[in-house]
Amino acid sequence: MEGKGIVFVISAPSGAGKTTLIREILRRISGLSYSISYTTRPPRPGEVDGKDYHFVTEEEFMEMAREGKFVEWARVHGALYGTPKENLYPEPGTDVLLDIDPQGAKQVKELRPDAVLIFIVPPSMDELERRLRERKKDSEEDIRRRLSNARKELDQVGLYDYIVVNDELENALQYLSSIILAERCKTERVLKEGIRWRV
Amino acid sequence: MEGKGIVFVISAPSGAGKTTLIREILRRISGLSYSISYTTRPPRPGEVDGKDYHFVTEEEFMEMAREGKFVEWARVHGALYGTPKENLYPEPGTDVLLDIDPQGAKQVKELRPDAVLIFIVPPSMDELERRLRERKKDSEEDIRRRLSNARKELDQVGLYDYIVVNDELENALQYLSSIILAERCKTERVLKEGIRWRV
Repeated sequence: MEGKGIVFVISAPSGAGKTTLIREILRRISGLSYSISYTTRPPRPGEVDGKDYHFVTEEEFMEMAREGKFVEWARVHGALYGTPKENLYPEPGTDVLLDIDPQGAKQVKELRPDAVLIFIVPPSMDELERRLRERKKDSEEDIRRRLSNARKELDQVGLYDYIVVNDELENALQYLSSIILAERCKTERVLKEGIRWRV
Repeated sequence: MEGKGIVFVISAPSGAGKTTLIREILRRISGLSYSISYTTRPPRPGEVDGKDYHFVTEEEFMEMAREGKFVEWARVHGALYGTPKENLYPEPGTDVLLDIDPQGAKQVKELRPDAVLIFIVPPSMDELERRLRERKKDSEEDIRRRLSNARKELDQVGLYDYIVVNDELENALQYLSSIILAERCKTERVLKEGIRWRV
């Protein structure tokens, strides 16, 4: 933990706009990189292996799980997702952004108690439903399952350090980048880096 | 404390550039107002009574002190300065920014344990000395006293939540405004405001 980069965890119910937020924040903030997870689900259009995810087979995934290489892994909507442990210890000066669900966030917090947990919420449940329907990706059954999962995830919000309401993209981005920059100014972190201005 | 605006405390050794930072941050961030202190020192050129300070006589000041109207008051470089208690309880949605020294910051923290303490530091002690000499406001004796005070104040930095290094004005402003916006996203504050997005 000592002298390592900061671990930022972002969770959100699907449809809260997390993917766009994360893509934009990585473009705007320097010294921040995305933690690439492993998954067994097939790539969606535009997703790149080794950039968005490491796409692996169920067998490959389970082999890594047995070797204890994951912070956490879980089956979500049928597919396996896992966060490699090594991603939690970035070099000093390079912070890492993890995109995981509340259950995974809890595991991260156990290994890195100084991890910063951010929850993205839609402006309302009605708006979330509207967005899920609008993107026309999911069946009616999928939408219901996602809404039910969203309600469960929202119950976990107390675990998180920050809540960002994604009402309007630019607003949400400003809050999100503010959280990252502010955390870099936390006294204990600045002092660990060495007090340049000390006599 | 419940449902009140956030109290931000900013401290800095003189010459760290605090005054400029505060003026700019108040222009840029909405819902943030400056806590006007009382002082017995004469106004400096450009300072306005009731805006920069309430300028009062030593007698008026001591009367208020006796009535317990100050969070803290102190004699600094010969003059009396006091922060009125009522400034610590702004209305919800209006945050307040206090400009006080580490001793005062400690008193604020006792009345408002949720106050957010920010310390502005110069890039180095050499740079601080250079800035103090450059502004040509102080005698050699003043400069030495200010440098000695700065060293004492820097020892108090552990009391603070955040450290902002004022190397370059725009950088420092970005960090400072990030801290303010990030604090507004803290889970306990968002939850107190009511969970709009809750089912």
